[in-house]
Amino acid sequence: MAEGELSTAAVHRLIEKAGAARVGNGAVETLREIIENIAVQISKDAIELASHAGRRTVRAEDIKLASKRFIQT
Amino acid sequence: MAEGELSTAAVHRLIEKAGAARVGNGAVETLREIIENIAVQISKDAIELASHAGRRTVRAEDIKLASKRFIQT
Repeated sequence: MAEGELSTAAVHRLIEKAGAARVGNGAVETLREIIENIAVQISKDAIELASHAGRRTVRAEDIKLASKRFIQT
Repeated sequence: MAEGELSTAAVHRLIEKAGAARVGNGAVETLREIIENIAVQISKDAIELASHAGRRTVRAEDIKLASKRFIQT
């Protein structure tokens, strides 16, 4: 599921910020797809949480709670 | 840790694609920070995996392996 919303240039910069000496061609596109899929999954969970709280508007608190299962603590 | 690389417009579209009826102001910025942090963490793990394989270039296969702990199966 490639959403294709995030810019590859921005994703490339994130990999460089992480400390990569060199970045292969496929690495950027692969990471872009992965984080878009995670973003959509977090959003779907957040929508469900908003609905559970009786709201149609997704708020920051829904995103935070939904993201917990993706975050290492 | 707000890297500030990904566009908020793109993140907003991802939340809408997930099916949100309405998106609160803080939700986009919160999700942007979260997925940037995840992207940097995956990249750091991928750099370590590349190094472990005797390479300085981060490849798609490093990103895929590094992302496994963030992906629900």
